[in-house]
Amino acid sequence: MIEAVVLLSGGMDSLVCAAIAATKHKHLAFLHLNYGQKTSAKELECFEKISDHYQIPTDHRKIIQMDFLKQIGGSSLTDDNITVKNYDGDESTIPSSYVPFRNSIILSLAVSWAESLGARHLYIGANFEDSPGYPDCRPEYYKAFNELVRLGTKDGDIHVHTPVIHMKKSEIVSEGLRLKAPFEMSWSCYARTDKACGVCDSCALRMRGFKEAQTVDPITYQG
Amino acid sequence: MIEAVVLLSGGMDSLVCAAIAATKHKHLAFLHLNYGQKTSAKELECFEKISDHYQIPTDHRKIIQMDFLKQIGGSSLTDDNITVKNYDGDESTIPSSYVPFRNSIILSLAVSWAESLGARHLYIGANFEDSPGYPDCRPEYYKAFNELVRLGTKDGDIHVHTPVIHMKKSEIVSEGLRLKAPFEMSWSCYARTDKACGVCDSCALRMRGFKEAQTVDPITYQG
Repeated sequence: MIEAVVLLSGGMDSLVCAAIAATKHKHLAFLHLNYGQKTSAKELECFEKISDHYQIPTDHRKIIQMDFLKQIGGSSLTDDNITVKNYDGDESTIPSSYVPFRNSIILSLAVSWAESLGARHLYIGANFEDSPGYPDCRPEYYKAFNELVRLGTKDGDIHVHTPVIHMKKSEIVSEGLRLKAPFEMSWSCYARTDKACGVCDSCALRMRGFKEAQTVDPITYQG
Repeated sequence: MIEAVVLLSGGMDSLVCAAIAATKHKHLAFLHLNYGQKTSAKELECFEKISDHYQIPTDHRKIIQMDFLKQIGGSSLTDDNITVKNYDGDESTIPSSYVPFRNSIILSLAVSWAESLGARHLYIGANFEDSPGYPDCRPEYYKAFNELVRLGTKDGDIHVHTPVIHMKKSEIVSEGLRLKAPFEMSWSCYARTDKACGVCDSCALRMRGFKEAQTVDPITYQG
C-alpha cells in the first residue's frame, strides 16, 4: 500500500523533498512530469537514478509527458522562441522561466494519481525563500490548494506537504547532506545538459546554496 | 484581445455555458480537452461544429490531448477494463465515470491558457444539481478554486464562472433554447457515438432534462 506520492523533477529541491519523505513513509511512489522543457532528457535520467537510489519499484514510478504545455506557451522553459534569461539578482520580478499556473497543473495530476493509488500524502519540493517571484511557490498558495483537495476529492483525505518551502537553498543543501541525498544525481540548470551553465537563474541559486552551506556541489559546471 | 476562455466538452452543459458566455463577451476562445474517453472522437466533432457556430477563429480554438489520464486510471471513462455502469437512480454515490480530481486538472490547464492569452474570465459548464456525487462539481469547490487562482497567478485577476451550476437539467435546456444554442451539435452519451445509448448515467440525465422542459431532444437515440 502506497502511503505517499513524491513529485520528483530531478532538481535539488525535489531530491531533498524525496529524502525527507523517505524518513516518514516506508512505501513511496515517484512522479515525474516532463513538460517539454529544454533539459527534459537530463531531468528524466536524474529521475530514474534517484528512483533507483530510493529503491522505488518500477510500477510505482510514473512519467507523464506534458508536451502540450508547449502549445500554451508564455514561458522560456517551454517556448523555443523565448531565450532563458540570465540571473539578474532581482528576485521581486517573475522570471522568464515562469509557466502560467504550472504548479496547479502538476499538483492536480499528482493528486489524481495519489487518489488512484490510495495514497494519503503528496510531497512537492516547492521553495519560497529563493523564489519569491513565483506566485505558486507561496505558502498561502499551498494552503489554498490543500483546501481545494479537501473539497475536490472523494474522501477529502489527501494532504499536500511542502517540507522545504521555508528553507533557504543553503538549508536545503545541509538537510540533504544530513539525509545522505545523492546530490550528484540531481540537475538544476535550465540551459544545458552536459555541464551546468552556471549563469541561469537556477544555477545561480544552486551555486549560492552550496557556497553558503560551505560545501562542494558534486555536479560539473562549465568553464 | 480575448476576454474569456470557455471549456467546451461538446456536452449540453458546456454548450449552454458557451451560449451564456457569448452573451457577455465579444471575443471568446474555446478549449477542448480530449482525455482519451471512449466517445472522444464524437466530442471533438461536436467541439468543431459548435466553434463554427459561434464563429471562433481557428487560432482561438485549442484541443489538448490528455491521453496520459488513461495511465492514471480509476475511471470507466478512461480505463477500458471498467464497464460504464448504467444509471441506477442513486445520486448520492460517486458514479463509475469519476476521474479523480479531473476538474482541477482541466481548470488548471484552462487558467494557464487564459493567462497566456490575457483573458480575465473562464467559463465551465459544471453542474451540481444533477451531479451531487462528483465532489468537484460542488459550488464550494469552485469558490476554493477561485481562491487558488487569485493566489497562484501573476495578476490574480482571472475569474472562473460556473453559470449553470445551480440549474436543473431542464433549466439548462430551457436556457439553451432561449439563447438558440445548437443542441443538435452536442453529445452527452458516455457509451456510444453513432446514436445515443439512452441508458448510461449521462443519457438518462439529458433525456430527463428535455422531458421536464417539455421539448424534443434533436439528437437520435438508439432503439
